[in-house]
Amino acid sequence: MITFGQRLRTALDTYGALCVGIDPHESLLTAWGLTPSAAGARELGLRVVDAAAGRVGVVKPQVAFFEQYGSRGIAALEDVQAAARAAGLLVIADGKRGDIGSTMAGYTSAWLSPGSPLEADAVTLSPYLGPDSLIESLRTALRLGKGAFVLAATSNPEAATVQRALVDDGSADEGQRVAERVARDVGSLNIGLPGSLGSLGVVVGATVDRAAFGLTDIVLAGTPVLAPGFGAQGADPADLRTLFGYGAANVVANESRSILSAGPAGIAARVDERAARYEGSLRG
Amino acid sequence: MITFGQRLRTALDTYGALCVGIDPHESLLTAWGLTPSAAGARELGLRVVDAAAGRVGVVKPQVAFFEQYGSRGIAALEDVQAAARAAGLLVIADGKRGDIGSTMAGYTSAWLSPGSPLEADAVTLSPYLGPDSLIESLRTALRLGKGAFVLAATSNPEAATVQRALVDDGSADEGQRVAERVARDVGSLNIGLPGSLGSLGVVVGATVDRAAFGLTDIVLAGTPVLAPGFGAQGADPADLRTLFGYGAANVVANESRSILSAGPAGIAARVDERAARYEGSLRG
Repeated sequence: MITFGQRLRTALDTYGALCVGIDPHESLLTAWGLTPSAAGARELGLRVVDAAAGRVGVVKPQVAFFEQYGSRGIAALEDVQAAARAAGLLVIADGKRGDIGSTMAGYTSAWLSPGSPLEADAVTLSPYLGPDSLIESLRTALRLGKGAFVLAATSNPEAATVQRALVDDGSADEGQRVAERVARDVGSLNIGLPGSLGSLGVVVGATVDRAAFGLTDIVLAGTPVLAPGFGAQGADPADLRTLFGYGAANVVANESRSILSAGPAGIAARVDERAARYEGSLRG
Repeated sequence: MITFGQRLRTALDTYGALCVGIDPHESLLTAWGLTPSAAGARELGLRVVDAAAGRVGVVKPQVAFFEQYGSRGIAALEDVQAAARAAGLLVIADGKRGDIGSTMAGYTSAWLSPGSPLEADAVTLSPYLGPDSLIESLRTALRLGKGAFVLAATSNPEAATVQRALVDDGSADEGQRVAERVARDVGSLNIGLPGSLGSLGVVVGATVDRAAFGLTDIVLAGTPVLAPGFGAQGADPADLRTLFGYGAANVVANESRSILSAGPAGIAARVDERAARYEGSLRG
């Protein structure tokens, strides 16, 4: 079985770091001349998939913008994800799910089980219930050849309250920042996988001061990193190597607004333009 | 406008603390003679609603067990939630959503906007991106007469890594446990609401050692508490007052397995039986 990490390695090597976010929020749908509805979200999603296919390796639909239309919105997301996978794109479903036990298994089944209507290649997960509460899900992902990105350090200013808090759980390595513990726990599950890149990654905002969260190059070694924050959110593709050091080649750099703002007529050219910004960004 | 806190106060005063969890996981569907499918989940959910109406004040559908069937499962959940609300039950949609900015607004709209297909009375939210990242959602909930329960301290053993970590964010009250900070931030938004009970609450597992998470009676004063962990998960209804002290009257005590295991023929009697276990539990 080819692992998600191997497929991601190939995608990044072939197309570069850019991942196109599929975020059909209402104002964007209106700007595209679409109705703010499940049908509008579906249409936008399918057009983004068309523009992304062959130009980037990865897309990231934002589940909330489909879920806001209820079951019809989720049906639209199913269509968008299926179209993206059929076009050879890797799909990271950004739902930030997190729970325990059989409930977490329900989410894992929804997003990662082969044949599930919402099947993606990887999901984003939230570790508020403890990074170890996700272990069973992460192992299931590996068994299915799928991937996951667990929230570690996000770029919003309010994030430090939880993500920089000091672990005090009686374990041998207490005193670490929460974000570092998350990254270490996730990364340790990649040990022994084939290929140079793990299948289980973390989310680290591109504009985050990694050191303040304990996320050094060593902690992130071999771990794929999903990095929102490029483009409209402020980080410059040219700084990819400066921002992520030795792990820069493992970064999935998400851009949404900077691309979707081009509108339906301009999006393909905009994807090319933004993807080109990452060329050479890994060279020192 | 009547607030969610006022409606919850009335529900708890009328029916007592018991909240019936609607958790259609596969093994349960099979045990009920239903297929593990969206249709099965819908059928179980509607039967639980029938049994719960007039016997308890609150039900809590677990979103994951519907989401695992994709858009059809979400459509089933829409039907179950609508039936519950039509029957006069308060619905807490347990999805543990959490994100930032316009994405979080998408989730808030999905679950709390009047007329949304997934409209509930309250939702559960996850604060890994910082409790303050949820403020806009929580204010929207208040404006709409809705409620929310933010994860504070859960009963799974892995939870301490994040929830007991010591806040170190440069704020004046750093050094608090993450769970305490969450509860304080959420509780402060209830100030000034009409009635004795807030509309914004926290999730605290019934079997959690509250003191170890900084969740004293003072921190939780006036805050509704959604408490999983009663029944099959180990906490005894007779201990409600011992476990939650002065805030015991504000506790929504969720039971799922202990009730659903009665099967379709026995569930109504089981709800009565379990609800009776909470009678007198608030007296000293």
